[in-house]
Amino acid sequence: MTTHADDLAARIGAPVELAGVAVRRPSRVRAGIDPALVTTDATALVKRGDIDVVVEVIGGIEPARTLITTAFEHGASVVSANKALLAQDGAALHAAAGEAGKDLYYEAAVAGAIPLIRPLRESLAGDKINRVMGIVNGTTNFILDKMDSTGAGYQEALDEATALGYAEADPTADVEGFDAAAKAAILAGIAFHSRVRLDDVYREGMTEVTSADFASARNMGCTIKLLAICERAADGGSVTARVHPAMIPLTHPLASVRGAYNAVFVESDAAGQLMFYGPGAGGAPTASAVLGDLVAVCRNRLAGATGPGESAYAALPVSPMGDVVTRYHISLDVADKPGVLAQVATVFAEHGVSIDTVRQQGRPDGGGEASLVVVTHRASDASLSGTVEALRNLDTVRGVASIMRVEGE
Amino acid sequence: MTTHADDLAARIGAPVELAGVAVRRPSRVRAGIDPALVTTDATALVKRGDIDVVVEVIGGIEPARTLITTAFEHGASVVSANKALLAQDGAALHAAAGEAGKDLYYEAAVAGAIPLIRPLRESLAGDKINRVMGIVNGTTNFILDKMDSTGAGYQEALDEATALGYAEADPTADVEGFDAAAKAAILAGIAFHSRVRLDDVYREGMTEVTSADFASARNMGCTIKLLAICERAADGGSVTARVHPAMIPLTHPLASVRGAYNAVFVESDAAGQLMFYGPGAGGAPTASAVLGDLVAVCRNRLAGATGPGESAYAALPVSPMGDVVTRYHISLDVADKPGVLAQVATVFAEHGVSIDTVRQQGRPDGGGEASLVVVTHRASDASLSGTVEALRNLDTVRGVASIMRVEGE
Repeated sequence: MTTHADDLAARIGAPVELAGVAVRRPSRVRAGIDPALVTTDATALVKRGDIDVVVEVIGGIEPARTLITTAFEHGASVVSANKALLAQDGAALHAAAGEAGKDLYYEAAVAGAIPLIRPLRESLAGDKINRVMGIVNGTTNFILDKMDSTGAGYQEALDEATALGYAEADPTADVEGFDAAAKAAILAGIAFHSRVRLDDVYREGMTEVTSADFASARNMGCTIKLLAICERAADGGSVTARVHPAMIPLTHPLASVRGAYNAVFVESDAAGQLMFYGPGAGGAPTASAVLGDLVAVCRNRLAGATGPGESAYAALPVSPMGDVVTRYHISLDVADKPGVLAQVATVFAEHGVSIDTVRQQGRPDGGGEASLVVVTHRASDASLSGTVEALRNLDTVRGVASIMRVEGE
Repeated sequence: MTTHADDLAARIGAPVELAGVAVRRPSRVRAGIDPALVTTDATALVKRGDIDVVVEVIGGIEPARTLITTAFEHGASVVSANKALLAQDGAALHAAAGEAGKDLYYEAAVAGAIPLIRPLRESLAGDKINRVMGIVNGTTNFILDKMDSTGAGYQEALDEATALGYAEADPTADVEGFDAAAKAAILAGIAFHSRVRLDDVYREGMTEVTSADFASARNMGCTIKLLAICERAADGGSVTARVHPAMIPLTHPLASVRGAYNAVFVESDAAGQLMFYGPGAGGAPTASAVLGDLVAVCRNRLAGATGPGESAYAALPVSPMGDVVTRYHISLDVADKPGVLAQVATVFAEHGVSIDTVRQQGRPDGGGEASLVVVTHRASDASLSGTVEALRNLDTVRGVASIMRVEGE
């Protein structure tokens, strides 16, 4: 039996020596770590000059950003798991790595241990990627899966996720889609050889998804997932990136991704449809991704080379959400009287949104209200928004109960 | 809009120039290829000395092997899609590449466009892989999926696969598991950092799977897939590789892989359970994988480096099939009289195979025969073989209708 260090050495072609560990609380006992290697002075560590690789798993913007650029300046390559920083400042960090002739690897930043960055950057480097659509946040997938399988409401499912440790005390970053949006920015940039920043990503959380939405989804043979979707426009001249809950058919491979698992569906010209599936978070999966990058960076170091840097040559602009074209499922509360459907249909037509199906049903409690469920053909988000605004102004429309995009068909 | 050649140049950092194309029939018109570049003399082409990369998509052992080694000797790196050759002579080819200081890449050899070789070699280089289990042959998955979904028999499903172009006129390589076995050898070698040759892989085809087997599988909440399974032994000291039809639970991610798609499930210490899914064959998917490798090899060439070579340092021996431990589903035709179950149970016990469930039922047509379905706990293949041999010698056992392994639980 070999030890893990021996395995790393054999795979790299040279032993890896731990030079130091910067932590906030040095008093916390760390099994297997020589206490003499532990320091609170991260800056001094990355400035030492004899460090080959710095692994950054702090998270957040600062001090991570300054430590990473300082590491480059002092001759180290960097392996990072920092999605927020990469999504916000990926271009600058890649530039700093390039100037220093060092590597910047970050497989762990997106979808944990699932090999995704490397397949997109390298395996598909000879192909043209048209869409990346994935479940990249385990917390929200756990909540939605729970709502789907048990009929629980959002709050109840969130409480269970919190109790089981899948959701943090403040779940905002997950449930409002910030975490997924950072990953979408990183994936879109790599997939389309362009620069996509966090601010370019349209973001809608999943806190307003209801059990009624799941019932509607089931009526359509669908379920609901929080999706990160990065698309090349039909004319190829721009891209979009967005995060929002969406209905997807139960037959779609992403529909069967349960619990806290992640999965990313990639569509390209030549390869066709690919999917990458696995645990999206957690200490051990993150360690797997970080160590994979560490081996790659060390191999590059021994070869006197660096791996692929940023590839943003295509420089495609990011279009606003209004340009996104997809289908919509709209639930309206309307007056239960003749002529309402005609009024509603007219509003859709006036905005150029073609209706696929309409389902109209009286409320069991009567009361003069009915519900109207409209599923559209593909239309731009701008057209749909205009339609909904106009619907709200109709006297006969009492309320727009929900609007959900329909993807993956 | 950029052309594809421009994209490749931007991603590599230098233009790629097509130096020549060796073909058997030069008269066949090839759109977009300068006829002056076409030759029938492949040997002269790889010997030119000014070639940076040779792409080998001939298949088979010779002349591919000689052309590849000749290419290395004359200063070229090689991208290959040749699973048979890699499974048989991978070690020698890697050695030849290493001696010449050149690259040997072959992502297209296993599971078409699905990034698999690179994730295993690189992304998981810091992890310990314990099992690789996959559907790596699209033809047989198409046939089994058809049998499962329509109730068709093997021959009927094969005929449809042939008519649709999923099966070749002579389907032996697919249906007898030779193709999958070659891929299993390649995957096992990479996953376990050891040498696994085609001859080391236990192989059983799927021509004897019947609709009765699918009915049995459904009774257990399972379906049947032809699986390639590469495992590290529980004590870590050896590995096994095998290809055979097996029952897997409908809840397993591999169970929902339909049609001619491929998918490979990977289990490792830190990353946990990963799955890679996509089209396993076809011209365009193969081209995607080949071009991805081409970009990587060209980047290495520009950096004056080579990518990771063979990693076989662990040198784990390959154990025979008898050492494989799994569960079994056995259907017996037995005499319909008291005491038979006791006899059968005794035989299992004598061979150390523990029974999980037994289902006994009289035949609707009477006639003194009954069927007995036994599902075992985990046992070695050798113990199970001994059990079956002894069962065949019982007067009361009229026949062993089927033996199927149960995986993925």
